[in-house]
Amino acid sequence: MQPIKKSIGIVNVSFGDDVQIVQPVNLYDCTIGSNCFIGPFTEIQRDVFIGNNCRIQSHSFICTGVTIGNGCFIGHGVMFVNDDFKIGKPAGDPTLWKKTTIGNHVSIGSNATILPVNICDHVVIGAGAVVTKDISIAGIYAGNPAILIRLLA
Amino acid sequence: MQPIKKSIGIVNVSFGDDVQIVQPVNLYDCTIGSNCFIGPFTEIQRDVFIGNNCRIQSHSFICTGVTIGNGCFIGHGVMFVNDDFKIGKPAGDPTLWKKTTIGNHVSIGSNATILPVNICDHVVIGAGAVVTKDISIAGIYAGNPAILIRLLA
Amino acid sequence: MQPIKKSIGIVNVSFGDDVQIVQPVNLYDCTIGSNCFIGPFTEIQRDVFIGNNCRIQSHSFICTGVTIGNGCFIGHGVMFVNDDFKIGKPAGDPTLWKKTTIGNHVSIGSNATILPVNICDHVVIGAGAVVTKDISIAGIYAGNPAILIRLLA
Repeated sequence: MQPIKKSIGIVNVSFGDDVQIVQPVNLYDCTIGSNCFIGPFTEIQRDVFIGNNCRIQSHSFICTGVTIGNGCFIGHGVMFVNDDFKIGKPAGDPTLWKKTTIGNHVSIGSNATILPVNICDHVVIGAGAVVTKDISIAGIYAGNPAILIRLLA
Repeated sequence: MQPIKKSIGIVNVSFGDDVQIVQPVNLYDCTIGSNCFIGPFTEIQRDVFIGNNCRIQSHSFICTGVTIGNGCFIGHGVMFVNDDFKIGKPAGDPTLWKKTTIGNHVSIGSNATILPVNICDHVVIGAGAVVTKDISIAGIYAGNPAILIRLLA
Repeated sequence: MQPIKKSIGIVNVSFGDDVQIVQPVNLYDCTIGSNCFIGPFTEIQRDVFIGNNCRIQSHSFICTGVTIGNGCFIGHGVMFVNDDFKIGKPAGDPTLWKKTTIGNHVSIGSNATILPVNICDHVVIGAGAVVTKDISIAGIYAGNPAILIRLLA
């Protein structure tokens, strides 16, 4: 049998002013604010909302359910998650997917993994960290699971 | 000097019915069962065998030596490994590469890393986990190295 | 608004003899030694220097500030880092980015994350490890953060 082959693209994306993209990328049905940079080998899914002045670096994946504020830096190879497999397998129904909200001026290090959580403003997530819980205090967090390393004033 | 430039593609792959692929992908000399989905920016190498009803999400890499059962979900940015560098460097000889077997209904979270192991049916691997040992009891495993978090009935 | 769309490519790269590349890749303003292999979905940035007889596997990202010796193996999905967000956000000024030096015969496992460090010759970094400190003793290191697992004679 021959498979059905589709291709990545930029489809139905609402862009602010002065956005730069390095293709290939797969962006669809999402909103990307002004003055953002989107690196190559990235995917941003349906209903994602990204604010202004953000950098989404190469190899990152932002799933449905994620909202990112202004002035955020998403490093290389960062993966967001909207399904925690709580029932022992994928939820199946997209209405069961969980949401992630990233505040303003949040910097996420490369290869970090972000489970469905809320992260407040002025947070740094270390490279390679796995964020499993909400973060409500400005600081630097790292490790698997991520824990507070240092407060940010 | 000019380098030798090759390109990715879909070469000598045996597909079941109703497979969907989002290109670009690099698939070669492997078998992919019916009703599977293969996301973009993925690579699946020689002699990999994937069963029916599986999803291989974007950015994942499945190396030679890996066999995946039916009804499995491989998240985004998941990396399989077939060489544990036991001699302090790559084995060199492909006959020394080690095998990985993934059972049925196994769900592997995004950015997880799977060393050469056997994983039984009905297992969840948490996002960002590093699986270093065989798993023979159905459950949810997470962390680096991955440990049992909760049994699945 | 329409974004500015650029595309990846191979621009201003100094290659040694007998280099093999599997496109798509994004390589610019860097030096790659003889007899190297560069896998697909990789990015190698400005001023990176890679020695001879190295393999840079698929999905890896090597940032400005990284120097890699001879006979090194960089696994799949490995991310290097040049900014530790010490000020609670990206440094902004590239002159503040930090350097990483990888010795000879270093093997880095897939999905590993390498903060700005120096790693001596004959080191193995386990798959999924996060290297946060200099390594000056030949051995196998793994975990998040990576620690010494076993010495290599």
